Amino acid sequence: MPLLRSWVESANSATTDFPLNNLPYGVFSVGLDAPARCGVAIGDMILDVTTLEAEGLIAPDPDTAVFDVAAWNDFMELGPDAWAAFRARLTEMLAEGAPDRAAVEPHLVPIADAEMHMPFGVSEFTDFYAGRHHATNVGTMFRGAENALPPNWLHIPIGYNGRASSVVVSGTAFHRPWGQLKSPDHDAPAFLPSRRFDFELEMGAIVGQPSQGMVSVAEADAMIFGYVMLNDWSARDIQAWEYQPLGPFQSKATATTISPWIVTAAALAPFRTQTPPREKELLPYLREPGLTLYDIGLEVTLAPEGKAGTVIARTNYREMYYSSAQQLAHHTTSGCPMNVGDLLGSGTISGPEKGNRGSLLELSWGGKEPMTLDTGETRSFIEDGDTITFRGGAEGEGYRIGFGQCAGTVLPAVDKPGWA
Amino acid sequence: MPLLRSWVESANSATTDFPLNNLPYGVFSVGLDAPARCGVAIGDMILDVTTLEAEGLIAPDPDTAVFDVAAWNDFMELGPDAWAAFRARLTEMLAEGAPDRAAVEPHLVPIADAEMHMPFGVSEFTDFYAGRHHATNVGTMFRGAENALPPNWLHIPIGYNGRASSVVVSGTAFHRPWGQLKSPDHDAPAFLPSRRFDFELEMGAIVGQPSQGMVSVAEADAMIFGYVMLNDWSARDIQAWEYQPLGPFQSKATATTISPWIVTAAALAPFRTQTPPREKELLPYLREPGLTLYDIGLEVTLAPEGKAGTVIARTNYREMYYSSAQQLAHHTTSGCPMNVGDLLGSGTISGPEKGNRGSLLELSWGGKEPMTLDTGETRSFIEDGDTITFRGGAEGEGYRIGFGQCAGTVLPAVDKPGWA
Repeated sequence: MPLLRSWVESANSATTDFPLNNLPYGVFSVGLDAPARCGVAIGDMILDVTTLEAEGLIAPDPDTAVFDVAAWNDFMELGPDAWAAFRARLTEMLAEGAPDRAAVEPHLVPIADAEMHMPFGVSEFTDFYAGRHHATNVGTMFRGAENALPPNWLHIPIGYNGRASSVVVSGTAFHRPWGQLKSPDHDAPAFLPSRRFDFELEMGAIVGQPSQGMVSVAEADAMIFGYVMLNDWSARDIQAWEYQPLGPFQSKATATTISPWIVTAAALAPFRTQTPPREKELLPYLREPGLTLYDIGLEVTLAPEGKAGTVIARTNYREMYYSSAQQLAHHTTSGCPMNVGDLLGSGTISGPEKGNRGSLLELSWGGKEPMTLDTGETRSFIEDGDTITFRGGAEGEGYRIGFGQCAGTVLPAVDKPGWA
Repeated sequence: MPLLRSWVESANSATTDFPLNNLPYGVFSVGLDAPARCGVAIGDMILDVTTLEAEGLIAPDPDTAVFDVAAWNDFMELGPDAWAAFRARLTEMLAEGAPDRAAVEPHLVPIADAEMHMPFGVSEFTDFYAGRHHATNVGTMFRGAENALPPNWLHIPIGYNGRASSVVVSGTAFHRPWGQLKSPDHDAPAFLPSRRFDFELEMGAIVGQPSQGMVSVAEADAMIFGYVMLNDWSARDIQAWEYQPLGPFQSKATATTISPWIVTAAALAPFRTQTPPREKELLPYLREPGLTLYDIGLEVTLAPEGKAGTVIARTNYREMYYSSAQQLAHHTTSGCPMNVGDLLGSGTISGPEKGNRGSLLELSWGGKEPMTLDTGETRSFIEDGDTITFRGGAEGEGYRIGFGQCAGTVLPAVDKPGWA
């Protein structure tokens, strides 16, 4: 598919994240105290669909408003036919030469003027561990190269439930967490700010349709509304002490940052690709009916406070051993009900080379090989004031399906409360 | 505190779960297609507070209705002062000799005629592992008596995030889960119905006020609105294969049953008790400001399909090593935001003796010592058609603060889908 041309001129550039082929969905506001509204990115503008719906120019649901609440959940509820019809309508309205231009153009606002908000209400958040390079790197550090992958890893998309309340939109700063840390040379833990605070480069899949009972990989794939970039911030030292035997808990609960634009599965369709070759045959319920992974390039920048950023990693979503559709199918095997707005983190996306690693834990090899930034500073883990920014997109011929950015700044830990 | 007498005569019995001292909160409906409403149990009746509010007889929030939605979340949002005022108003209205009797009595319906629904919307569900006897029993089975307790256990209330969508109200039947099972004598897992399906006897604490950032144990205690009994159904064989390294996932996601009545912290206040003596001193942030645990007797009945039940365990909530307030305080250490409607499972409540064990895993010692029921049948784990029922309450002088019951029936696994 070539670039689709729009009358919004900035959408016709080969480098914009938001050509007419993309049409990602977000929630924005302009100015202080202005209400947040649903919007669609096109070039360097946002189309205000809450106002368009209120004025009767669009009606994704003929019976009721779906954009009167500033979240895409009500729209997701409508289901795949409505998703396709709305996308077709947007494409028509914004295409070069569209007769709707005069009616639509007043409802464009510059992205530069907008503040972005959470694009949807997160029902529940599940995080997976499905990148083979990441699991191998981490396993090698903790258990040695021979035992790097746990015995179940090649059979199950390993996942755990995360904390939905921790999910924040790109641009949200937060404080370094406190937690129980136990150093090997002490008998007992101490309550201290995390010293090994890290990012994890992931994609997030957004469940757009509910299920009760088991679903197939094909059904799961059709339930996924779209994708965001996701930073699963992780306190490695809290995790090391707390995670046996029931998994990560407070180490992952400080914040989970997502990019503000939901890039739809429809926009990403031309970039579907295969999961990597299987070392062990998967059980039938996990086998893919077709291409369920995506070719999406990703990069990570670390910027110390007030300084220029350094690109510290580049990788690709196609490195995942399990796709989000496979993860979602596995998620339902027990009969677990899934809901609109459930968010599935892919797991950390590392590639085969050192420069492809999706966490500082891997990049600095547990702190043993600190990275040198372009500023000359070194990093083993995140320092106060550091901003981590992900950028990503799928590259078409003459266009790009971009995700915008997923950024977060780590502020110093809050003062210790008197009772702690 | 003695029994408070009510003009609802059935509430004055020493054996009712619901004397005037209790006043637990639930959601009920009477008859097919009738709307669900908020109600308060009193003796063998339910007071319909949705109708009372609509008719202006009560107004917990002077500005807006809180019972027009059939869930107690909006009421919880009002906060502790409103909780206390409403409880005082109910106590006054239902007390022996109350002048309100004539106005209130038409709004009582028999519990026997009501179907109970989820009493609140579960925002997120966290499950803990805070019973020392349970952790010791399970640890002994899996790691030997010397290594029974993980090294962190005496320092941290170990917890993991569960699946809120799995929470159902007492009386909801569900199907035995499918999952990946790996037997020691096979190289690869198979996809089969769980063979070691189990219950876990727990209490659930309901968070009634939100928090951002760390809270103390005292603050956490004040955030807890009330308690329910909770069955954390567990597929031991799925868990054994999936849980390393990130904890339980599908093994705990089939269903989590709660009792239908929220017994308030206020009603339980006379039954506050101490947590057990500490083997290791806790970090200051986990120390209790007073009594944060409760003396609540609990019993478990197993009834094969169509047969009488056998009481298979009796224990007490006071056996927990960490209280829900301590767990909630720990939950916030990372800065994790907590919301109204968050549910915290206490962890399995086992006592010191064999007859006090809160799971079949422990009662049958991993299947090695099957139990004999009163019917003559034996059980190592749950069989199709079995109903597990919890009953519990705190015993006052001449009255009882009861929880009703928490029951669930395990139906046979669904047929295997063609694609699995």
